[in-house]
Amino acid sequence: MTRNLPVDAARIAEDIDALAAITEPDRPWTRRAFSPLFLKGRAYIEERMKSAGLETHIDAGGNLIGRRAGSKPGLGTIMVGSHSDTVPDGGRFDGIAGVISALEVARALKDRGIELDHDLEIVDFLAEEVSIFGVSCIGSRGMTGQLPDAWLSRVSGERDLAHGITEVGGDPLKLPEQRRPDLKGFLELHIEQGPILEAESKDIGIVTAIAGITRIEITVEGRADHAGTTPMDRRADALVAASELVLDIRSKALALSAGPTHFAATVGEFRIEPNAANVVPSRVVLLIDARAEAREEMEGFCSFVDTAAARVAAVHGVAIRPPHRVSDNFPTPCDAGLIATLERASDAVEAPHRRMASGAGHDTAWVARVAPAAMIFVPCREGRSHSPDEWAENDDIALGAAVLFEAVREMDKSLSKETADGTHTG
Amino acid sequence: MTRNLPVDAARIAEDIDALAAITEPDRPWTRRAFSPLFLKGRAYIEERMKSAGLETHIDAGGNLIGRRAGSKPGLGTIMVGSHSDTVPDGGRFDGIAGVISALEVARALKDRGIELDHDLEIVDFLAEEVSIFGVSCIGSRGMTGQLPDAWLSRVSGERDLAHGITEVGGDPLKLPEQRRPDLKGFLELHIEQGPILEAESKDIGIVTAIAGITRIEITVEGRADHAGTTPMDRRADALVAASELVLDIRSKALALSAGPTHFAATVGEFRIEPNAANVVPSRVVLLIDARAEAREEMEGFCSFVDTAAARVAAVHGVAIRPPHRVSDNFPTPCDAGLIATLERASDAVEAPHRRMASGAGHDTAWVARVAPAAMIFVPCREGRSHSPDEWAENDDIALGAAVLFEAVREMDKSLSKETADGTHTG
Repeated sequence: MTRNLPVDAARIAEDIDALAAITEPDRPWTRRAFSPLFLKGRAYIEERMKSAGLETHIDAGGNLIGRRAGSKPGLGTIMVGSHSDTVPDGGRFDGIAGVISALEVARALKDRGIELDHDLEIVDFLAEEVSIFGVSCIGSRGMTGQLPDAWLSRVSGERDLAHGITEVGGDPLKLPEQRRPDLKGFLELHIEQGPILEAESKDIGIVTAIAGITRIEITVEGRADHAGTTPMDRRADALVAASELVLDIRSKALALSAGPTHFAATVGEFRIEPNAANVVPSRVVLLIDARAEAREEMEGFCSFVDTAAARVAAVHGVAIRPPHRVSDNFPTPCDAGLIATLERASDAVEAPHRRMASGAGHDTAWVARVAPAAMIFVPCREGRSHSPDEWAENDDIALGAAVLFEAVREMDKSLSKETADGTHTG
Repeated sequence: MTRNLPVDAARIAEDIDALAAITEPDRPWTRRAFSPLFLKGRAYIEERMKSAGLETHIDAGGNLIGRRAGSKPGLGTIMVGSHSDTVPDGGRFDGIAGVISALEVARALKDRGIELDHDLEIVDFLAEEVSIFGVSCIGSRGMTGQLPDAWLSRVSGERDLAHGITEVGGDPLKLPEQRRPDLKGFLELHIEQGPILEAESKDIGIVTAIAGITRIEITVEGRADHAGTTPMDRRADALVAASELVLDIRSKALALSAGPTHFAATVGEFRIEPNAANVVPSRVVLLIDARAEAREEMEGFCSFVDTAAARVAAVHGVAIRPPHRVSDNFPTPCDAGLIATLERASDAVEAPHRRMASGAGHDTAWVARVAPAAMIFVPCREGRSHSPDEWAENDDIALGAAVLFEAVREMDKSLSKETADGTHTG
């Protein structure tokens, strides 16, 4: 790193390494939410927050927050952060890079004696990854009053989610009334978890929207026949029919992905019955994971799947129940003003950048529903994530932290001006 | 049944019903080889053999044999039979129909006071189905010196196959020297386990050959990527590639099956990894079960699979190891003389018949390697087998038994003539 950045790259590397060391020893890098290791990681982060002069607390949603009061009380809060939990076999950077970069922004401000008008909060959201309770983004939903009440009684082992939140220091009873009207802007840094920035030699991805995710389950019902004795033209082979559906889905997704907005669809779950060498497959259940930046593309894709399923059923003599949308989340656009801020901030630190959608879900999507929010990506090696191989160069993360630093400073000024102008005070 | 047959249909029905009742009560119709229920079934069959005037014993291979001495000692043996074990959830007729039909031939001869020149043996082969030891046709291989020595040490639970054979009354130490030079002809009746006879309203299928079975394993290695963030054109999706292979295999098999000899190929086992909704599939392992009456078709099919795998790998950017033949058994033709005998016997009882290959494996295939052997099929409902729904009309089985009766009588005469002529004396 030769650039003269407002942040300290070595300090970022030290923290990320320290957190990586807090892992299940036989399963790097694993620090799942609600586990003792997770609390150990948080204790480290909290200690570092305090060293940076932040006042720490756990909010009702179980989020760890480090706060730095602004010079103009009541002006509102700028929040920066991500999450410190991992998936099993997880990664050294997914989430953690964003928490430490945010912390580094606070440290850089302190080092330079810069006082903001707004309060600044550095956040480590609880359980962004799919947790032991089977659900994700618990902290970001909880902070913003969007955690479904029914989720609190989801059970893992001997406790429910309400107990889990209490154990990490949150207060599930107060979740229904959680609102953050003071939040004036939120920023998150995250590794891309995709190959685009690396392939295009861009340092920063400015996220325009978090793609919507729709999951569609399809059950193909054929007939179990003897594989040796049943003539080829008298079969209802569920695997043959399902294979044709997989190729149809792939072709359609490839065509949609060539358009200007992000689209991807994957058949990731696929199981056949009876799965015996000498029996014609009688049933296949497959699950499509589709991601779209533009809702109309998702609707078009779902219609295509309905039509393809009916066609394949007719051609192969199998029965296919109407494809079932197991879940269906709309895309979340990032705040246009903050996108522009992040672009100026990237230019300020001379970081080549491009706009892109996020194909993955993030805490930003939940915060964006209650406050202006945006996020940046930094490159990661070969797009690998949710894997022990996940890797991001520390210099790239530090450059991203510098973008956050510049963006926070601009937000502090422009939001103060807006408030003075009487705009965006709600 | 209005035809005046030499066999007693009611007696056949009584025995098949009695054996059906000897089943795992919660899992009809299950009477797996080596189980206490299997031995109970055999005790019933042995008792019925004795009532028919047969001398019973268990041979070294664990086969139950009921013997009726011929009038000309040393002339040799005509054997008729099948197997009484079932698959799990098995069937009321698969194998059993052949054992009881054979027994009925002996009873009909006795009823009519017919003495044969040759010895007659009614056989219940041990473990024709894939057994708890993972292998099949144990009795027919064992009787004919074709049981691989290594199989004896295959383990299930706390015993090996050698102990299993001993427990049913066999003698594994004597298996290596098993030969049946006295065997002059073997016949088996079996349900078709396919839909052809029913569809064509034929009563009897005269089996020309037992198809060879080749099993080919293919492993497709792609790359596990994030399903949301990895662009569609940068993926190595193992499921997409494997789906194309499944369709290629289906097309080729359909084309081959249109020829004059039996051919079928099925992908029956198919598993994907990691099988997670949001991860591009990294690996598929699939198993092809191919059956061919003509060996050259099987060779052609295997070459096609090799080529298709290489093509699919190139098109989809995945790695496919050269397809591996897990097992490869050649087709076994039935004896031409006995085929003609069975056709005359069918005509004698006015049973519409057709020649056909057996797509399934049978004990006949093993006996056919050491002695003239042939088999007949009787219709079964919708071709269903290895299922609780398996069904064959008792009248159809009785008509098949009558064909066996006529065929055995002709064999007894013609084989005696051949011996007198000095041909086929073994």
